Amino acid sequence: MAKNPICELFGIEYPIIQGGMAWVSDAHIAAAVSEAGGLGVIAAGNAPASWVSEQIDIVRTKTQKPFGVNVMLLSPFKDEVAKLIAEKKVPVIITGAGNPGEFLEMWQASGAKVVPVVASSALAIRMERMGVDAVVAEGCEAGGHIGELTTMVLVPNIVDAVSIPVIAAGGIGDARSAAAAFCLGAKGVQVGTRFILATECTAHQAFKDKVIKAKDVDSKVTGRVTGHPVRLIRSPLSREMARVEYEPDAVEKLEAMGEGSLRKAVVDGDIKEGSFMAGQIACMLEKEEPAGDIIKDILNKPAIDAIIDSVKAVLN
Amino acid sequence: MAKNPICELFGIEYPIIQGGMAWVSDAHIAAAVSEAGGLGVIAAGNAPASWVSEQIDIVRTKTQKPFGVNVMLLSPFKDEVAKLIAEKKVPVIITGAGNPGEFLEMWQASGAKVVPVVASSALAIRMERMGVDAVVAEGCEAGGHIGELTTMVLVPNIVDAVSIPVIAAGGIGDARSAAAAFCLGAKGVQVGTRFILATECTAHQAFKDKVIKAKDVDSKVTGRVTGHPVRLIRSPLSREMARVEYEPDAVEKLEAMGEGSLRKAVVDGDIKEGSFMAGQIACMLEKEEPAGDIIKDILNKPAIDAIIDSVKAVLN
Repeated sequence: MAKNPICELFGIEYPIIQGGMAWVSDAHIAAAVSEAGGLGVIAAGNAPASWVSEQIDIVRTKTQKPFGVNVMLLSPFKDEVAKLIAEKKVPVIITGAGNPGEFLEMWQASGAKVVPVVASSALAIRMERMGVDAVVAEGCEAGGHIGELTTMVLVPNIVDAVSIPVIAAGGIGDARSAAAAFCLGAKGVQVGTRFILATECTAHQAFKDKVIKAKDVDSKVTGRVTGHPVRLIRSPLSREMARVEYEPDAVEKLEAMGEGSLRKAVVDGDIKEGSFMAGQIACMLEKEEPAGDIIKDILNKPAIDAIIDSVKAVLN
Repeated sequence: MAKNPICELFGIEYPIIQGGMAWVSDAHIAAAVSEAGGLGVIAAGNAPASWVSEQIDIVRTKTQKPFGVNVMLLSPFKDEVAKLIAEKKVPVIITGAGNPGEFLEMWQASGAKVVPVVASSALAIRMERMGVDAVVAEGCEAGGHIGELTTMVLVPNIVDAVSIPVIAAGGIGDARSAAAAFCLGAKGVQVGTRFILATECTAHQAFKDKVIKAKDVDSKVTGRVTGHPVRLIRSPLSREMARVEYEPDAVEKLEAMGEGSLRKAVVDGDIKEGSFMAGQIACMLEKEEPAGDIIKDILNKPAIDAIIDSVKAVLN
């Protein structure tokens, strides 16, 4: 049988990509995921190239396997990061928050596979025409900055619109949701929130505890008024943001409150002022465990086969 | 092999429920869906009992098969409708917008199966304890009034929380999304938007054309400020509503604009003042066809088997 196109493309064992989460996705979690057979990803976020360079070097001391860097295209350091990852021949480059067109030639010349995160079929089509290798279709159940469409609708819509492989993201945290994503036509899955709970993830314990304790009603979206909505777990900050959302100077206030708040959550575990960005799936996550166990739980062939057999039974 | 629990419960052939859409779901579409082997549903919406009674009688002249009535618990006529459907021994009662507790005993004594639509696991658990027969877990990709969680997260979360069968709703429009819903643990699917395009559906052609022409970016949510957000297709009204959403007197303005707007869309085809409530899945729908063909396309056993086989291949 043909090999999975995502495994083929990235040279990995399991078609699972660890989501690039600013401040969370450093070399430690990325190396653990890659070493366990998935694609570990360093999130460049708003960090300077020097930090990204250091993380790449650490990953390479910990694993020989392929890994990726997620480039946030609104970063003030995007140009230096873009150049660095080409020079360092990072195997996979995932991009968020925009159009990576200006860097595509340089990156592909360096040997990288380039995979933009998209939230609409129009952008997916534009990216395919430009020559990217795959796309991540990210539904609005994901954590952090989000689009409008849910995974259930976005994934098949993009699968129908492009010929390159589609990786589903948003709401994926166990074998059931992975199987669902594959039914929708995805060839791989990107998982963010669940990897916050990897033992190798260096996020503050208070952040991990927020993810573990989150109930379904605790997933909130703030900042819709700014045009850049963010999904996070309910907290004193999210409540304060919700309160000012409809005030006349909401945009300025929200920007001031957001400034540095993700770092406060991930690094300092600051329950009051931190922004605990995580996906809706947090409500289903219960414990910390090694990245390798997470991968084996999500892409567990016997479990997925059992799910699929139960689907056959539904129609009897 | 065990019969599907939803088919068993309702006495139907295919585990597909036609969503109760106010003004759209009258006797004509309900009878067509039931006659084709699904569960057709009359939406009582804000209509008086006399209208609902008439629709029930029409359904019964058109089919001998089981059907349902969807009761909107915020309706000013909910008490008279509740009494009527017990007297008329409607086989399945689906409830929206609240807790049907006060009517449960009367309905079940009449022989009805009672199925609330829920958008959180806490409500699902409460409903199960109260003794309902099943729940519809409706993700926020659905049209009309919506909750916060997407189908991808809500369905497995509710499946884990209750023992009664779970019907998935929101984002389901083809065999892929039905298969995905079954992977998430649903035993049946509720489909609304696609049945707007049933030839038997009496909605105005302008409404059907809006659904057919909708692109992924055309799905909008208005009225978050009121606490009762509504998903609809982009239109002059949705744009105007988005404009006032952040004004100081938004709640009053939005309520005034919403008043009667669904009727204007469904009955009059009023492109300017109508509220074209439909789910995100509208972007994937392309044509009108008979209700029976829609059912066979969504719950097509060879198609679902092929999807499932492709999932097995993904992990090779």
